[in-house]
Amino acid sequence: MGIVLGANQYGKAENRLVRIYRENTRHEIRDVTVSTALRGDFTDAHLAGDQARVLPTDTQKNTCYAFAKEHGLREIEDYALTLARHFVDDVEPVTGATIAVDELGWQRAQEHDHTWVRTGPEVRTTEVVADASGAVVTSGLKDLVLLKSTGSEFAGFLTDEYTTLAETHDRIMSTSLVATWSYTGTDVDWDKTWADVRTILVERFANVHSLALQQTLWEMGRAVLEAHPAIASISLSAPNKHHFLVDLAPFGLENPGEVFYAADRPYGLIEAVVTRS
Amino acid sequence: MGIVLGANQYGKAENRLVRIYRENTRHEIRDVTVSTALRGDFTDAHLAGDQARVLPTDTQKNTCYAFAKEHGLREIEDYALTLARHFVDDVEPVTGATIAVDELGWQRAQEHDHTWVRTGPEVRTTEVVADASGAVVTSGLKDLVLLKSTGSEFAGFLTDEYTTLAETHDRIMSTSLVATWSYTGTDVDWDKTWADVRTILVERFANVHSLALQQTLWEMGRAVLEAHPAIASISLSAPNKHHFLVDLAPFGLENPGEVFYAADRPYGLIEAVVTRS
Amino acid sequence: MGIVLGANQYGKAENRLVRIYRENTRHEIRDVTVSTALRGDFTDAHLAGDQARVLPTDTQKNTCYAFAKEHGLREIEDYALTLARHFVDDVEPVTGATIAVDELGWQRAQEHDHTWVRTGPEVRTTEVVADASGAVVTSGLKDLVLLKSTGSEFAGFLTDEYTTLAETHDRIMSTSLVATWSYTGTDVDWDKTWADVRTILVERFANVHSLALQQTLWEMGRAVLEAHPAIASISLSAPNKHHFLVDLAPFGLENPGEVFYAADRPYGLIEAVVTRS
Amino acid sequence: MGIVLGANQYGKAENRLVRIYRENTRHEIRDVTVSTALRGDFTDAHLAGDQARVLPTDTQKNTCYAFAKEHGLREIEDYALTLARHFVDDVEPVTGATIAVDELGWQRAQEHDHTWVRTGPEVRTTEVVADASGAVVTSGLKDLVLLKSTGSEFAGFLTDEYTTLAETHDRIMSTSLVATWSYTGTDVDWDKTWADVRTILVERFANVHSLALQQTLWEMGRAVLEAHPAIASISLSAPNKHHFLVDLAPFGLENPGEVFYAADRPYGLIEAVVTRS
Repeated sequence: MGIVLGANQYGKAENRLVRIYRENTRHEIRDVTVSTALRGDFTDAHLAGDQARVLPTDTQKNTCYAFAKEHGLREIEDYALTLARHFVDDVEPVTGATIAVDELGWQRAQEHDHTWVRTGPEVRTTEVVADASGAVVTSGLKDLVLLKSTGSEFAGFLTDEYTTLAETHDRIMSTSLVATWSYTGTDVDWDKTWADVRTILVERFANVHSLALQQTLWEMGRAVLEAHPAIASISLSAPNKHHFLVDLAPFGLENPGEVFYAADRPYGLIEAVVTRS
Repeated sequence: MGIVLGANQYGKAENRLVRIYRENTRHEIRDVTVSTALRGDFTDAHLAGDQARVLPTDTQKNTCYAFAKEHGLREIEDYALTLARHFVDDVEPVTGATIAVDELGWQRAQEHDHTWVRTGPEVRTTEVVADASGAVVTSGLKDLVLLKSTGSEFAGFLTDEYTTLAETHDRIMSTSLVATWSYTGTDVDWDKTWADVRTILVERFANVHSLALQQTLWEMGRAVLEAHPAIASISLSAPNKHHFLVDLAPFGLENPGEVFYAADRPYGLIEAVVTRS
Repeated sequence: MGIVLGANQYGKAENRLVRIYRENTRHEIRDVTVSTALRGDFTDAHLAGDQARVLPTDTQKNTCYAFAKEHGLREIEDYALTLARHFVDDVEPVTGATIAVDELGWQRAQEHDHTWVRTGPEVRTTEVVADASGAVVTSGLKDLVLLKSTGSEFAGFLTDEYTTLAETHDRIMSTSLVATWSYTGTDVDWDKTWADVRTILVERFANVHSLALQQTLWEMGRAVLEAHPAIASISLSAPNKHHFLVDLAPFGLENPGEVFYAADRPYGLIEAVVTRS
Repeated sequence: MGIVLGANQYGKAENRLVRIYRENTRHEIRDVTVSTALRGDFTDAHLAGDQARVLPTDTQKNTCYAFAKEHGLREIEDYALTLARHFVDDVEPVTGATIAVDELGWQRAQEHDHTWVRTGPEVRTTEVVADASGAVVTSGLKDLVLLKSTGSEFAGFLTDEYTTLAETHDRIMSTSLVATWSYTGTDVDWDKTWADVRTILVERFANVHSLALQQTLWEMGRAVLEAHPAIASISLSAPNKHHFLVDLAPFGLENPGEVFYAADRPYGLIEAVVTRS
């Protein structure tokens, strides 16, 4: 039985890139963090240290910046697709590429032509995986922090000898949502679809009377798939950011769902994929 | 020459507290991180380990939570003032107290009655320092990230044998502003004043044609003091978040202020106080 | 075509737990962060909000703490195995469990009986995945930051029209290593094996004359597999923490590999699995 | 009453610099983060945008790197002193300078000649403040995380109506120490003194039977001043990293100081200066 090289890839991670469009006095901005990863037969680089088939990560970085000018950077999905296809199509040893883009949000400051204020913490994301057979686009968002102050229960759960939790029929539910959804193709209005998915996710979080975070995630995912035939499946990862009701009885005070301690760790972590059968 | 105890204080830092107002179906939320620090003659605690004059930091934490119910938590300046005065007035050994509050932002999700989305990264801050003579309120903001894509120069600077920087008459200027301003009194419309100061800071950043970040800070500070007689002075700390124009010439591309590398470190750091004579 | 629930799991993440052994005056300490994730048929929880088959994440947390007393916490692999098997064997709806443990390092302070100093940034890790068929243990480390000041080259690489990088035959090579290796069974001397793998990884990093980080990773992985038949495969993820030689020529100074700028982002990211054929 | 410019300074923060000494085959490494801040009459830069007296922060960065070659970088106090005096003495408009240096730790990997492993999280620090009258050196450390599993009490404290804390005569005491001490002069063996102060701080933390963190800080500071006449005063800032005993009674288990929940926030924060009368 021998020892062999298994799966491997390499690239340049977290290229920080800001693209300004200034053809008009009213500028536009795109602020992204781009990561590249290339796959192919790089056995010689590993086993013999031979770099003849290795395009430097520095070159990958240069390509990210050059493409933002050469091909533009508007919708991050298009930008990532162009980069991914370039590496697969134009760089001989490369058989597969993953391009991940995080887009930081900015909003115009007081409707100014060339000044913006950062929004957040929410980040828009995309990841394109390309090979000879084509490209798959998975878009998403992360750090979308949501909270509802009522309309959430947790009761009727399984118990065992380690259970001490009390049932509750009215609690704070809060999460910092990570959602990624994969598209069936690439002929998509990326910006419009992304904005619409986000609206659905927030709407479902708000309006589903929740018997558990699992249920809310399912309703979010189902609503997205129902509204968007171009989306094949959606993955949701939701920390349960616990807000514990503070016991004010020792101080002669009632606390009917008003004063909470927001805990850091530990946190529940609920993960689910909603897909098509 | 002896060895003596110098300045000292103690408290509970970073109490995470969420306050929900639910008298109406349309709830309200306040999300704060509160830190307390008490001063007084605590020599015995240090030199002899005698805690008879030491109110536990756990008690200070309890007080933060209890007061959010007992006295409410609306404007963070009022909340901090009430806490600070309590410690100074009601806890015998305490002669001075500092209460610092960071307020995290939330906006209603789709105008929903009890669901919100976190905004940020910007944080509203206040610090109240109280003793027998009264209380001083210093409010502010931090992590207000601003960027302008033109209207900023840096030229005509001093040079020495270590200078290699080229002059520029059009660059990106970006910062993550920390501003704190102290009030002359406590009879202030805290929310309204805070919002107005923030508007002025952003407006000046946007509209001052900047010959240097120093100039922009001065103009920000001056405008705040001119508009608000109740503000005694303002401190501004502004990292110069460098955005370097990428050299695309090796790839046969021009780059007239369009593609930038956003650097993490190092960064310029410009700090100034604007005050009254 | 319908919409269905896909892969899903839930648990309590990042339970911070310190275990003191104090049978003797010379205490022992274990400091871990434990995360649990349970799998099974939780369709009703998602689709109908029915929690009857859902053991609360709070109970999972309790179990982590109780087991640290009931079954002890010495080698993190044993602790994780015991927890994973408990959830699969004892909680009826659970068909699979993942227990991840990060162990923070402490060393005795001046050989004191009950005082320690934190070491780091390096963290020891394990992840146990269990189901009815058994359990697989994958151990590892992360944040092991290594640097060599010579004995590293990068030359002879592929170039294209976006390549500007110069070849180098003497550079700093530095990484913050993440390594995880899976065992073929569970009858392993966990502490001894972990320490030995770490020694091999560091030794190979130091002594392989590196023509590229890929080569170093391969040599690390191969050496581990050669020395440890109980290890089935090893995954290595290595950021290339770039140290750029500073151009001091404008100041009339030479810089023969002496003064470097340590960059944050972007960084190369090299990932490889070494396995058995 | 007019509006005027108050205190101001500017500089380049967090220059990441690695210095290798390679005269011998056994290399040496220094890894620092350097920040500069300059003071002087920069009124014109603020009020009129005139940079004629402003040495760019880019030049300050260059100077940090050039000096690491030109003057060397061994003890960070000497390096910071040389930089600070240069800015004050050689740059005409500069009347004051602060140079702050954080030194990251490395230890040789297996006694290798040119390979190291990062240690930490502890960081060695210095800050030099210079003006025409001379320079003051304040050295220190931060992120020194200490824990003792017994020998710590907290009882006999002041109570009020918000007190719920129980007394304890045996608890975990843990902190992440920040200590800074100022020297009376600059004729000091920096490395030796720093190492000795660190030893004293750890020794006192370990061996003082603590009735409160305040007492431990006092004993630490007193011992440092007693041993080092060259030290004028020492400031200690110590978060009380709470380790809460987990209640295992619901599971039929005793917990005599064995299983703890290590909390993140809130934390006590104890600050004290020990000085000479």
